[in-house]
Amino acid sequence: MFQQISILGPGLLGASLALALKERRLCQRVHIWSRRKETRQRAMQADWCDAIFDHAADACVHSDLVIICTPVETIVPLLKEIEPALTPNTLITDVGSTKATICRAAQHFDVHFIGSHPMAGSERTGMAHARANLFESAACILTPLEDVSTAQLTRLRQLWEAIGMRVAVSTPEKHDEIVAHISHLPHLLASSLCAYLAKKEPAWKDLAGGGLRDTTRVAAGDPTLWQQILEQNREEVLSAIQGFQNELDSLKTALHQNKTSDLLSKLEQGKQFRDSL
Amino acid sequence: MFQQISILGPGLLGASLALALKERRLCQRVHIWSRRKETRQRAMQADWCDAIFDHAADACVHSDLVIICTPVETIVPLLKEIEPALTPNTLITDVGSTKATICRAAQHFDVHFIGSHPMAGSERTGMAHARANLFESAACILTPLEDVSTAQLTRLRQLWEAIGMRVAVSTPEKHDEIVAHISHLPHLLASSLCAYLAKKEPAWKDLAGGGLRDTTRVAAGDPTLWQQILEQNREEVLSAIQGFQNELDSLKTALHQNKTSDLLSKLEQGKQFRDSL
Repeated sequence: MFQQISILGPGLLGASLALALKERRLCQRVHIWSRRKETRQRAMQADWCDAIFDHAADACVHSDLVIICTPVETIVPLLKEIEPALTPNTLITDVGSTKATICRAAQHFDVHFIGSHPMAGSERTGMAHARANLFESAACILTPLEDVSTAQLTRLRQLWEAIGMRVAVSTPEKHDEIVAHISHLPHLLASSLCAYLAKKEPAWKDLAGGGLRDTTRVAAGDPTLWQQILEQNREEVLSAIQGFQNELDSLKTALHQNKTSDLLSKLEQGKQFRDSL
Repeated sequence: MFQQISILGPGLLGASLALALKERRLCQRVHIWSRRKETRQRAMQADWCDAIFDHAADACVHSDLVIICTPVETIVPLLKEIEPALTPNTLITDVGSTKATICRAAQHFDVHFIGSHPMAGSERTGMAHARANLFESAACILTPLEDVSTAQLTRLRQLWEAIGMRVAVSTPEKHDEIVAHISHLPHLLASSLCAYLAKKEPAWKDLAGGGLRDTTRVAAGDPTLWQQILEQNREEVLSAIQGFQNELDSLKTALHQNKTSDLLSKLEQGKQFRDSL
């Protein structure tokens, strides 16, 4: 499918991608770059890595496809760094959780860039948790800009589909609105709940059941990665928080005013949505 | 350990309890009562059920222990109904998710009542999902009143421990404050989030990853059971919602005002709490 793919940032997503590409024989060679020497040394020993580079641009020379898998704030700077090393046909994508800032900035470079957001991951980050089946059955949102070539979009779609993903296409702005609601808001609620409970008596948590553990699992995610994501999607996230606060307020009012049928109706709406997931 | 145990309400908890008691040979006979004829017919065929009764009081005759496993609003009425059938030594407990209303009402009956709250369960309710290991490694909070006999409390503690639970003891009021935070609030947040997302475009949910599914799992629980729980613990739940709203507001402010270090610090507090669960 591809001759040579460069993966910049072999963390959970990048390393899982390399594993999946190799397992399904989707490319001849995988070139890896990592900012950290220690990660480069570990990647060098992995059989999903054909060559490792100290500089991102060097890792991209002669590649058909470059996949940027670093934290969202570093994606645009990396794009600038690798631009001179790319051939005219190189396709570039990323796996960042926000898309508008990144895709609109990419327009200023002379590159073929199409944003991707595979909705796969885990609160356990890092190469050590990588697995080839991370992407299977999950959704991947592609966010091509207006001027993208259909052929390039098709190539990218086929790549994600080849590793088992369900591909959807959206504008970067619509993507950011959607994930603010289905990913960033749930994360924020889990983090806020945990930050709130952290102020209570430590013994309480020993009494918690599986419900609290599930509800808060995502709060164990890397705080720096999430701070960057929330800040890059600030306006959409603020709007999603506001919408949620209104909903919570109306449920609180129903409980406060003893309006049983309103309370029940909210719980039923919630169950219906959850059952449909 | 016991000669005869009556289980009133063989739903997920009641039937799992019967299974666990039989598997570990903790009693000779299990007597079952269910309000619904259809449930009685199914229970009759189960090997964890030695006798089935149409009337709750009949199921309790000659029992050493009665465990009420019905929805919280029905526990006190059932206590009144079975009171005449009990022998002077019969110990009674329940598995309700709220304790103050129930335990304080039980004081008006001439019975040996000690509230229990096994922190085990699932959004999948009903006998069909029962399993003997439901309680293993989970916490169980006992809420004895001031006048309870130590011997009875010890018997009850040993029963829960014998099926694998970690037992904690608290006043009913303290119990209600704790579970408002570690169980009822998380449930409310999951339900509110789902009720909010239900108003958005239906296609969005096909894009959701495992994070949203985990965060909202408990919202699939039975709406009527939860409406009763939330209403019986109204004051404590309202206070927990308020505390959470303050926390969410401060996170929202940090994001709105671009205070990166405040935002990061909240996310870090959340992660630290979650990692400690």
